[in-house]
Amino acid sequence: MAETGASARKLTMDDIRAAAERLKNWGRWGAEDEVGTLNYTRPEDIVAATRLVQKGKVISLALPYDHRGPQGGKTKYPALGRFNPVHLMMRTGTDAYSGVLDSRKIRSADDVIMMPTQCGTQWDGLGHIFYGNHMWNGYDCRTVTSAGAQKCGIEKTKDRMVGRGVLLDIPRMLGMERLPDAFAVTNEMLGRAEKHFGVEVRRGDFLLVRTGQMEAMLAANTWDGYSGGDAPGLAFETLDWLHAKQVAAIATDTWGAEVRPNETDEANQPWHWISIPVMGLTVGEIFDLGELARECAEDKRYEFLFVAPALPVTGAVASPVNPLAIK
Amino acid sequence: MAETGASARKLTMDDIRAAAERLKNWGRWGAEDEVGTLNYTRPEDIVAATRLVQKGKVISLALPYDHRGPQGGKTKYPALGRFNPVHLMMRTGTDAYSGVLDSRKIRSADDVIMMPTQCGTQWDGLGHIFYGNHMWNGYDCRTVTSAGAQKCGIEKTKDRMVGRGVLLDIPRMLGMERLPDAFAVTNEMLGRAEKHFGVEVRRGDFLLVRTGQMEAMLAANTWDGYSGGDAPGLAFETLDWLHAKQVAAIATDTWGAEVRPNETDEANQPWHWISIPVMGLTVGEIFDLGELARECAEDKRYEFLFVAPALPVTGAVASPVNPLAIK
Amino acid sequence: MAETGASARKLTMDDIRAAAERLKNWGRWGAEDEVGTLNYTRPEDIVAATRLVQKGKVISLALPYDHRGPQGGKTKYPALGRFNPVHLMMRTGTDAYSGVLDSRKIRSADDVIMMPTQCGTQWDGLGHIFYGNHMWNGYDCRTVTSAGAQKCGIEKTKDRMVGRGVLLDIPRMLGMERLPDAFAVTNEMLGRAEKHFGVEVRRGDFLLVRTGQMEAMLAANTWDGYSGGDAPGLAFETLDWLHAKQVAAIATDTWGAEVRPNETDEANQPWHWISIPVMGLTVGEIFDLGELARECAEDKRYEFLFVAPALPVTGAVASPVNPLAIK
Amino acid sequence: MAETGASARKLTMDDIRAAAERLKNWGRWGAEDEVGTLNYTRPEDIVAATRLVQKGKVISLALPYDHRGPQGGKTKYPALGRFNPVHLMMRTGTDAYSGVLDSRKIRSADDVIMMPTQCGTQWDGLGHIFYGNHMWNGYDCRTVTSAGAQKCGIEKTKDRMVGRGVLLDIPRMLGMERLPDAFAVTNEMLGRAEKHFGVEVRRGDFLLVRTGQMEAMLAANTWDGYSGGDAPGLAFETLDWLHAKQVAAIATDTWGAEVRPNETDEANQPWHWISIPVMGLTVGEIFDLGELARECAEDKRYEFLFVAPALPVTGAVASPVNPLAIK
Repeated sequence: MAETGASARKLTMDDIRAAAERLKNWGRWGAEDEVGTLNYTRPEDIVAATRLVQKGKVISLALPYDHRGPQGGKTKYPALGRFNPVHLMMRTGTDAYSGVLDSRKIRSADDVIMMPTQCGTQWDGLGHIFYGNHMWNGYDCRTVTSAGAQKCGIEKTKDRMVGRGVLLDIPRMLGMERLPDAFAVTNEMLGRAEKHFGVEVRRGDFLLVRTGQMEAMLAANTWDGYSGGDAPGLAFETLDWLHAKQVAAIATDTWGAEVRPNETDEANQPWHWISIPVMGLTVGEIFDLGELARECAEDKRYEFLFVAPALPVTGAVASPVNPLAIK
Repeated sequence: MAETGASARKLTMDDIRAAAERLKNWGRWGAEDEVGTLNYTRPEDIVAATRLVQKGKVISLALPYDHRGPQGGKTKYPALGRFNPVHLMMRTGTDAYSGVLDSRKIRSADDVIMMPTQCGTQWDGLGHIFYGNHMWNGYDCRTVTSAGAQKCGIEKTKDRMVGRGVLLDIPRMLGMERLPDAFAVTNEMLGRAEKHFGVEVRRGDFLLVRTGQMEAMLAANTWDGYSGGDAPGLAFETLDWLHAKQVAAIATDTWGAEVRPNETDEANQPWHWISIPVMGLTVGEIFDLGELARECAEDKRYEFLFVAPALPVTGAVASPVNPLAIK
Repeated sequence: MAETGASARKLTMDDIRAAAERLKNWGRWGAEDEVGTLNYTRPEDIVAATRLVQKGKVISLALPYDHRGPQGGKTKYPALGRFNPVHLMMRTGTDAYSGVLDSRKIRSADDVIMMPTQCGTQWDGLGHIFYGNHMWNGYDCRTVTSAGAQKCGIEKTKDRMVGRGVLLDIPRMLGMERLPDAFAVTNEMLGRAEKHFGVEVRRGDFLLVRTGQMEAMLAANTWDGYSGGDAPGLAFETLDWLHAKQVAAIATDTWGAEVRPNETDEANQPWHWISIPVMGLTVGEIFDLGELARECAEDKRYEFLFVAPALPVTGAVASPVNPLAIK
Repeated sequence: MAETGASARKLTMDDIRAAAERLKNWGRWGAEDEVGTLNYTRPEDIVAATRLVQKGKVISLALPYDHRGPQGGKTKYPALGRFNPVHLMMRTGTDAYSGVLDSRKIRSADDVIMMPTQCGTQWDGLGHIFYGNHMWNGYDCRTVTSAGAQKCGIEKTKDRMVGRGVLLDIPRMLGMERLPDAFAVTNEMLGRAEKHFGVEVRRGDFLLVRTGQMEAMLAANTWDGYSGGDAPGLAFETLDWLHAKQVAAIATDTWGAEVRPNETDEANQPWHWISIPVMGLTVGEIFDLGELARECAEDKRYEFLFVAPALPVTGAVASPVNPLAIK
């Protein structure tokens, strides 16, 4: 049990309710706040984070957005309706070659993208999950209508996603290629990883937790089992650790951040029930942490400047993103 | 004439061809290169740019992506078919409130975005414009098909859009609220602006040129005349200036970067004919430079860390972007 | 007053509630029914309708679906978010010409359409409007979620839209080019039109009412004021007439069937409040009745075979349609 | 060999070229024609077809359009990029229930559909396939650009898809549940089926050929192998039969009408090379013929009124359709 990190017993709704009471940040940044723990990052943290840049190396943590994305896979669970990006052209080089653009006196290509905001590398915004009839900061869930999120839309974060990034590479610490499905990353492991990699997670940080699942998928050239399937991930108890650490945001290389199957039968994604609406924690998912992990292992520095601006789509509950780690 | 910056005579196709010969960068970074002038930015430039951050202030240069975007306006020119973002929900807080999600044991919202990549704040990638039957670096324009750009897709830039940003605020220099339509920003003005604002544009920089047109539109609460319409913008001759300066990329607060009506009747957007396919210059458009301009005027520092990662949409010829200036 | 057809006083919510009680068809076709008044059309009506075909002439009542559609216009009212069809290609003849398809050993073109189901010529399905917390036949409105209409989806009508069509051409009867905005078509006018054109509306018919507004728009080459704007249309009292006549469905050449400004300030589209959810009446809108009207005027026959199959999009609350009148 | 209907030897490009010469209809209906063999149906044929209606029974031949559609399956062949319909809501009953619509004074639902025109039951228009650099009637293939089909768009057929329908139920004739993959339907079989079912295919008819493949897929609850995979279907030689019969259009219950694997290695879908661009034959695919086949077997009448109007999407090369057989 200890080795896999699984908790000793299944969680109940009482556990979830207790966590909600214990970890609730509503009102902490005022009744009008819409960005939650992103408030932890102060200007001085941003200045300090820029000084971590020593090599001028930029590492993108985004998967390509295309029809080969992770929504193509099959799992044993019901689908959520998300699909891979559909990219279509409005004008092409073949149009140009064919001469049909020349009446416009310019030869150009144009394109269109259609995608669920959570189809690939993404930020879950604070409008994404509800706790009962409420969302972050106690807003009524009915403020997220078919017309979008009138509160906590992702556009509210547009100048917020900059700070110190820290990578905790759990499988590397454990000498594993990847964490297996159902492996829960515990508070003990997170603390051990800080010591192991010589990096302390601090207030306002953007914490990246690697499980290795994505790289295994990419190596196997299949997404079957990834999106919505079983996965390694954060234990429910990490909510307390993240709360105490006062991180700005967290991201993982998995579809859903938390361990699956979940630690309870009474809720789906119980960690999400608390992290997003109760704590106000922005969550990144489907981050490609492979190159960054190799780079950190090589230079032994697990901290870096992190810049991952969401697209300010008005009223969106999430956003595709090209997160950058700059070393 | 001097006051408006317009050139003395209309350009001809011979002028355009001569510029193409004079400014062609094909092969400069090898036969396989797909990112052009972004190569000018070296790792040491990135490190140095991070040291420009003194206040920890992040300024987003993106317009909101929504149905109130700039594609809604009318002009006297034929439309390009671009439309404002369409944002639709797959699950909502009203679904949650209605209880219809509870069988899933989680209350969540999900959404979808559909948009032309160039409907709002955007990077034009090197697959966007063709010169004759060729694109950047001499690639055949037929590599941009209905299936997307097989060469020079925007995803090739995914770890490139980081460096020193410089703002040249032309209307402020001239004591104007905004530059009027048809006002051409000349080389002389760019050079004068460097001196006026005490900032030198250097190799590998990301140059932002403000015209004030966007803020005027926002103040007037209409986009009529903006997208595809007449506008202030870069004179054709600035191609030489940018070439000599070796900038990594350039962006403006207008729809199309260059002055409109164009300086010629023989080509549409002649500056684009050269900048993107011949020079390999990535171009940003519809950047909201208002807040940044005010901030720079206040602290008198017109350089900053600039981070503007494109979404790596495979084969896309452009990308929406949330560009950040960090001071 | 009599000339314009407007009622003598504004309607109140009490009038609407009284109409709901008076005209409610819930349960008439059983507790499981999802198609409402389409049940009025019996097989023998269909057989009889086919015998109306004498010339073998087919008239399409659909507007083209494209970017020049009626959603482009401006009105003084808030927009609903509908947009004109977006048609994009996945493969083209220019790709073919450029040779880039030849590795597939076939030269073909493919395309994609994205559109609101109500952006052009359309059927409003019975999931489109709610009366309080209920929809047609008393179903809970919460059966229409972000996942679509679990009850009364348009797909339930897939073999229903066939029968006798009748055109009542009100402006022609009145010697007018078109009915002006705010002109209410009354029961008296409908009855007079039957006599004028020598055609009786009967149980199970598909009734088409022409106002001439669309043809005026097409002639003026603008849609400003059309979608969601003021318009001629059916008076609220026609609900009783249609109920008594037991029509299967009704369609008009306007955006919203009923007269606008509406006959009340207390509800928006009060006729819709009753027709769709209370009576179970399927409603067609944005039908192009110009050619049909000319044809009927010429041959003096205002009845015909009507075939207008909705696309069976599962869970849709409406459908684009190419309705055919066959004479 | 005779039992499966496969031809004795593989076809070559010479065979295809010979068929093109032999079967070319270019110019037959004038140099401006854009609808090809749909011209075969005359007004008197339409009148006569209506008289086939005896029972007033309407049978829809459309599959539902939804995420469970046939594009979900996997095959051993490369994908074409088509995807199942994406249906999204703009307003919902849950919005209504939540009270968030009440400021509009109407409770309504609205929706959007996005789909490839060929993702489900469909008409292939005459802009869909090219023969060399030409399309139907000799038009240059470059008239089908990223902006759509300037010639032969599906909208040209908007008042054409009405006539006599004939079903030839090949597996029933042969005493089989379904034709197996790679089974070619030959001219001999078509002729035999006419006699077997007592129905003669005539000039201007809409011919439906059943293979039973779709019903087998529906029964097995999987689309794997269907779209783009191996299938029973029309032999190449049927082009001559259809040419001689002068049918208006043909449709089958398979993804691609013709037998797969194809009868040649030198071309993909060789029957399509000729039928659409050379003969001008409109082709229906993914028609659900199960209920119709049962009905015809029961009443022993294999002819009926057929009405299958394409949506007039301007410049589309195909259209989703809800085809109706009316008996």
